[in-house]
Amino acid sequence: MRALLIGRFQPLHLGHMEIIREASAEYDLIIGIGSAQKSHTIENPFTAGERYEMILRSLGKEGISAHIIPIPDVDYNSVWASHVISICPPFQAVLSNNPLTIELFSPLKKVMSTELFSRKEYSGREIRRRMIEGEEWRHLVPEEAARYIDEIDGIKRIRYLAKGDEL
Amino acid sequence: MRALLIGRFQPLHLGHMEIIREASAEYDLIIGIGSAQKSHTIENPFTAGERYEMILRSLGKEGISAHIIPIPDVDYNSVWASHVISICPPFQAVLSNNPLTIELFSPLKKVMSTELFSRKEYSGREIRRRMIEGEEWRHLVPEEAARYIDEIDGIKRIRYLAKGDEL
Amino acid sequence: MRALLIGRFQPLHLGHMEIIREASAEYDLIIGIGSAQKSHTIENPFTAGERYEMILRSLGKEGISAHIIPIPDVDYNSVWASHVISICPPFQAVLSNNPLTIELFSPLKKVMSTELFSRKEYSGREIRRRMIEGEEWRHLVPEEAARYIDEIDGIKRIRYLAKGDEL
Amino acid sequence: MRALLIGRFQPLHLGHMEIIREASAEYDLIIGIGSAQKSHTIENPFTAGERYEMILRSLGKEGISAHIIPIPDVDYNSVWASHVISICPPFQAVLSNNPLTIELFSPLKKVMSTELFSRKEYSGREIRRRMIEGEEWRHLVPEEAARYIDEIDGIKRIRYLAKGDEL
Amino acid sequence: MRALLIGRFQPLHLGHMEIIREASAEYDLIIGIGSAQKSHTIENPFTAGERYEMILRSLGKEGISAHIIPIPDVDYNSVWASHVISICPPFQAVLSNNPLTIELFSPLKKVMSTELFSRKEYSGREIRRRMIEGEEWRHLVPEEAARYIDEIDGIKRIRYLAKGDEL
Amino acid sequence: MRALLIGRFQPLHLGHMEIIREASAEYDLIIGIGSAQKSHTIENPFTAGERYEMILRSLGKEGISAHIIPIPDVDYNSVWASHVISICPPFQAVLSNNPLTIELFSPLKKVMSTELFSRKEYSGREIRRRMIEGEEWRHLVPEEAARYIDEIDGIKRIRYLAKGDEL
Repeated sequence: MRALLIGRFQPLHLGHMEIIREASAEYDLIIGIGSAQKSHTIENPFTAGERYEMILRSLGKEGISAHIIPIPDVDYNSVWASHVISICPPFQAVLSNNPLTIELFSPLKKVMSTELFSRKEYSGREIRRRMIEGEEWRHLVPEEAARYIDEIDGIKRIRYLAKGDEL
Repeated sequence: MRALLIGRFQPLHLGHMEIIREASAEYDLIIGIGSAQKSHTIENPFTAGERYEMILRSLGKEGISAHIIPIPDVDYNSVWASHVISICPPFQAVLSNNPLTIELFSPLKKVMSTELFSRKEYSGREIRRRMIEGEEWRHLVPEEAARYIDEIDGIKRIRYLAKGDEL
Repeated sequence: MRALLIGRFQPLHLGHMEIIREASAEYDLIIGIGSAQKSHTIENPFTAGERYEMILRSLGKEGISAHIIPIPDVDYNSVWASHVISICPPFQAVLSNNPLTIELFSPLKKVMSTELFSRKEYSGREIRRRMIEGEEWRHLVPEEAARYIDEIDGIKRIRYLAKGDEL
Repeated sequence: MRALLIGRFQPLHLGHMEIIREASAEYDLIIGIGSAQKSHTIENPFTAGERYEMILRSLGKEGISAHIIPIPDVDYNSVWASHVISICPPFQAVLSNNPLTIELFSPLKKVMSTELFSRKEYSGREIRRRMIEGEEWRHLVPEEAARYIDEIDGIKRIRYLAKGDEL
Repeated sequence: MRALLIGRFQPLHLGHMEIIREASAEYDLIIGIGSAQKSHTIENPFTAGERYEMILRSLGKEGISAHIIPIPDVDYNSVWASHVISICPPFQAVLSNNPLTIELFSPLKKVMSTELFSRKEYSGREIRRRMIEGEEWRHLVPEEAARYIDEIDGIKRIRYLAKGDEL
Repeated sequence: MRALLIGRFQPLHLGHMEIIREASAEYDLIIGIGSAQKSHTIENPFTAGERYEMILRSLGKEGISAHIIPIPDVDYNSVWASHVISICPPFQAVLSNNPLTIELFSPLKKVMSTELFSRKEYSGREIRRRMIEGEEWRHLVPEEAARYIDEIDGIKRIRYLAKGDEL
């Protein structure tokens, strides 16, 4: 069975990795990178391509294989599930804990809670806050992701953006 | 004279009904369903089609007739009035209490305050808050609308969405 | 049962009227005005609002009632049916002879051929050609539609546009 | 009086220059660069910025002053005139020979034929054809524009694009 | 050298003028009017055309010359710099204090801090707040801009919009 | 070195396969599925997801590995290369024979002709024509792709769409 897991991965963290590890053992896994057109904001610092690379390296390190697909927003909830179905290879199930994703996919696909795959809580928002305020964040993301974020000077970017100012 | 009343109707409530009742007695009424492309959020739980149905049934019950037209946003205020004029049958007046609507239509059409048609205050936001928090809301909307919201399990939807969570 | 008939109605013609007459006798009919955002071109001379008015008057003359709904294009075929479903009140069937419409709605709704409702062939393209070249076209459209097109000086508009020229 | 002249200027040619010369003598002239988002196609080889530069240099050479404003398409004719009005400084008249422009602006502004300012016919399409097929084109455009097109290797670009091929 | 300064100019204020005055002495200056499609909101009360006129008059008064270019948003940060480059005439440097602008242009153009040109702080947000609450604001904007805002009844507009209300 | 190959793959054919086979031997290959939002037309019969599946199965059969990424159009050539770069993992080279792709990527990336990888000519247009007219097409596409097209009843779809008719 092929299953889709959608996240924004801003950034990829250990919570995501746990779910991916478990789910890829059981399913032919598609990892959908949501809000693919967003980047360079405090909420969405990394491009879809950068998030793809973080995932690629982290999965590669552990020998996990998955289909990784950037999914741009359509800003029209009623058609969002059809949009996702249209750009992903055929899948039968959706893994999610996001109420909107669950609500929109329930009429169309089998939907499973990601809690089946991981119980610990990790928060992208908390990790971004730590990045901005200079606190420790590396222990919350896969080693390969941390290294890649350093490679692209990601911390400098998010801190810089956080100084936000009226254009 | 044909007059246009625009609202989001999230959901249709008794305040809307009072205005519609009075205005349809005086004018050939167009009811424009604003933000037609929005749904499945806390601020905009229902699709344009669902809002159309609520209005249709509630008007039908009272024998009121009106033209109901879904109006998607254009996110470009300077062209919004032209957009509305383009997709509605010809009309001469606009009924509104929304400052933006009044500001944008004033150079083009006769604009009248909805207070001419109803004084009591009803709030869509307050009704949605009650739906989410499990308080009484049915006495604030037309009976037919409440029944339809139940039919489509609308309360479950809005409560579910309210649990919102980072994707 | 509620059924949806989608057309562009550029302009409304007697072929459309025959289908509408038959279909409205059998179903609670939704008339979807396709490509609602298009106007002022040779292929799409009239705004959605003008097409709405043509339909309204022609139906009114014959005492036919239907829900008329402008449907803007989304230019993304995979999500088009979800888009239409989202802005129309709930319906169970689609009436169409357009292969794309049939293809996109078949997985979601009962689809019926419009030939069940009318056999004669009328062509919007031929009517527009006649309008442009000054040939007779009035016998091909409902009397009320012809009158409205005259009212808005529609023939002058389409002939003028046909002189097209590089901007 | 301030007047707006809209063209695509693909490329700026001597016909445009004649109109600009005459019109700028009489009006405070706005030159709107239409289809501003288009470039790198056979019909629209140059970016809005490149077209801006061609106009700027050619006007500068002759000491003509005008406001030059890139105008992206909106692909929604009914709102196009409002869109143009919104991004240009206030103007009272429109100069055009394009039927669509005239049709859309007539209800809102004084519209004047560009034939008042120039009788000779020049064609952007013919100039692009000559560029592609290696025929003489330089005598049809202002000297400064020809020089700028050479500077950016424009002929190589349009010839290259003309080899078009399925992606 | 040609340099680009981007702002929203909601409204043009004395801080902008100081930078423009200094920068135009040193560079062939392009003034980009950001968020060109936005207007009639509390954060963006004026259209791009109105902002163009404010700038035009204020520069004219002081004999400053610059290229003024409305720049609509693309809501896709990764392509925003390419978008700006595409619609502006060629430029070599960007003047900005906005972290996002600096971040996005740094890989492509020389970026200079606007602090090189002005140290005093002026805030568009503070000026809009004063306009709404009826406090003094005229001493914070160029005289010509204040006069133009009065001409178009701008204060009435922003105060009216501030009464905002659910549609 | 990582290299990007962009095609529409409507459908994947043996010409594509030859290039992919050769290129993947030399590079870490990204296969970009262009016009990802298009489907259900004669020129673009298959969804991005269906094209993904064709590629996935055909590569799997031969043990070729590549990153497959759906790339929606942006309809703004000047920003297209930035868009592609934003949603793909970092790459250093582009493989293409399409003049527009080459023109747009040349300032940003090393561009190589696909003729380096394959000389034989295959045409998606010719294959679609054969599908529509009932001629032999299976020998022109990978066996796995032909099988998948049959699985989803693709020939029936494209033939049906070819009957096109005014909406």
